[in-house]
Amino acid sequence: MTEPLATGATIGILGGGQLGRMLSVAAARLGFRTHIYEPAARPPAADVAHAVTTAPYEDEAALRAFASAVDVITYEFENIPTAALDLLEAHRPIRPGRRALAVSQDRIAEKDFLTGLGLSTAPYAGVDSAQDLEAAIARIGTPAILKTTRLGYDGKGQARLRAPADAAAALAAMQGAPAVLEGFVDFSHEVSVIAARGPGGEVAAYDPGENVHRDGILHTTTVPARLSPAQRSDAVLIAARILNALDYVGVLGVELFVTAQGLLVNEIAPRVHNSGHWTQNGCAVDQFEQHIRAVAGWPLGDGKRHSNVVMTNLIGEEIEQVPGLARESMCALHLYGKAEARPGRKMGHVNRVNGPARG
Amino acid sequence: MTEPLATGATIGILGGGQLGRMLSVAAARLGFRTHIYEPAARPPAADVAHAVTTAPYEDEAALRAFASAVDVITYEFENIPTAALDLLEAHRPIRPGRRALAVSQDRIAEKDFLTGLGLSTAPYAGVDSAQDLEAAIARIGTPAILKTTRLGYDGKGQARLRAPADAAAALAAMQGAPAVLEGFVDFSHEVSVIAARGPGGEVAAYDPGENVHRDGILHTTTVPARLSPAQRSDAVLIAARILNALDYVGVLGVELFVTAQGLLVNEIAPRVHNSGHWTQNGCAVDQFEQHIRAVAGWPLGDGKRHSNVVMTNLIGEEIEQVPGLARESMCALHLYGKAEARPGRKMGHVNRVNGPARG
Repeated sequence: MTEPLATGATIGILGGGQLGRMLSVAAARLGFRTHIYEPAARPPAADVAHAVTTAPYEDEAALRAFASAVDVITYEFENIPTAALDLLEAHRPIRPGRRALAVSQDRIAEKDFLTGLGLSTAPYAGVDSAQDLEAAIARIGTPAILKTTRLGYDGKGQARLRAPADAAAALAAMQGAPAVLEGFVDFSHEVSVIAARGPGGEVAAYDPGENVHRDGILHTTTVPARLSPAQRSDAVLIAARILNALDYVGVLGVELFVTAQGLLVNEIAPRVHNSGHWTQNGCAVDQFEQHIRAVAGWPLGDGKRHSNVVMTNLIGEEIEQVPGLARESMCALHLYGKAEARPGRKMGHVNRVNGPARG
Repeated sequence: MTEPLATGATIGILGGGQLGRMLSVAAARLGFRTHIYEPAARPPAADVAHAVTTAPYEDEAALRAFASAVDVITYEFENIPTAALDLLEAHRPIRPGRRALAVSQDRIAEKDFLTGLGLSTAPYAGVDSAQDLEAAIARIGTPAILKTTRLGYDGKGQARLRAPADAAAALAAMQGAPAVLEGFVDFSHEVSVIAARGPGGEVAAYDPGENVHRDGILHTTTVPARLSPAQRSDAVLIAARILNALDYVGVLGVELFVTAQGLLVNEIAPRVHNSGHWTQNGCAVDQFEQHIRAVAGWPLGDGKRHSNVVMTNLIGEEIEQVPGLARESMCALHLYGKAEARPGRKMGHVNRVNGPARG
């Protein structure tokens, strides 16, 4: 697929959550149709998609039918089973490509990749045994955090080590899964860069946003972030280096720690990212449309913003704040249409437009 | 229906064109589902709607099933057959209400209503015969324009009279339909006000936009419009007076001529309006969401804009400009997913974000 996708073509999206939902709306804005593939019933994306397949990732017939109904395939989450990807890729291009998925599905592969590019990360060491862990602690020290190498959700598969004595309990919490010990980083704040790359190698980045987490879940992203001009350009250059090294197509999220020694890469996400939701009300082309443009081989938006924005997630019962938020001036609501407000569940977000772009 | 509609409820929309499409996206942003009723196959709104009924407005069973599947009904165009409205209204509330439709479906009823409120319009007179027309010309003079009283599309059902001698030909062009003679107005430019009213009487207006037409179709809307502060407040007060007089619920578009003698009302549209598309990239709450908020009994956005915007329609083959437009900075694309670019057909629009709100 080298020609730009024509208006009216169908973009297949693996995953029907809120990211798939907002990708679907952005695709429609460019005249594309979307087809969602999602195992769970009544996914949020179904309300705004042209077609939906409800089937598990093990259903080869459903995967084949999905692939033949779409022109290109993208995804809203990175934990897609490899066998499903193999089958789909035999029929249609998958964007972003497999390399980005392989790297981001495994914490050690990701850190090896990043350090191989000359980028800084937290100190880390693979841990498969008590012996490994002892050696890792000796090198990295405590406090530290032990994580399964495959991605967990919302802080699951993680154990903190305040002191070397916590080693046995932390290892037990991994339940025998391969793990990685990460040293704590002394950082002042976290920022993230949302950047995109097209199939021709064109790269565009949004201004970095500053993230605040609460209970392990993103709470707010504020743009502009507190960064010096040099840090800001470093942040964007780091994202561009990652995009080019992966021969990436689509939007990528890069979380960075701001430290006295410079920027450290915390994590990359090969997809649109919660910390990029502010672009919906700060830019003429938001991260969702930017991803669709890249996947479709269209020209990328340049990432310029017209307004400063503070994005705040609505988690669980925070959705009950909506009647008050709806009365607030310059407050844009983005609700996901989820029926049940379970604790920790992302129900929506608001973008508060915070004056013209400055800083 | 006095309680605000709960997230997850379904809003029925009569008409599946681009306005229904953008209403559907706005409804989803608030967590609502939409169900489109549209006689034509493959309507643009279907790509982003939860459900679609494809049936004519004469199909009573389909209308009944549609009404029972939705919580409230709204529409994207005003020429809905009366019998269909009667049937639907027996089952579910229709917003905006019947009075607004009755007034806006008939040019004489509309002008009588407006002048009855003390608002100015072009001079007009009903014409059912050659005798009527002669009397009307004697009073109004020429140049003038003869129009069928029921709404035409894109300048159809209209005939210009440069001189009294054109009377016979103009009358023949009406093909026996009831008509109205409208005097020409000496205006410097046209502006429109997009305003909304909630079920509790709350009113909110966006800043007026300045409209330029080409071949009888809206070409651009520029915000801010060239208006003095007094004219701007007059424009908004005119819209508010109309909304209140109609006990209106939803978004209304009011086209105004700017003349040396003040503002004249050209036309009202009981729906979201092409000249309000700029709000998508100029405001935190756009006209589509504002309409859904009103119809759902939610608090209205306050209409403030964060950015100046120039909206340009893409008509017919102008859709071929998209690759170039996609490369332009601060240019937001809104394409309707229509397969065929027929002459005069609205294929999409762009909003050029033109700096922070000023003026």
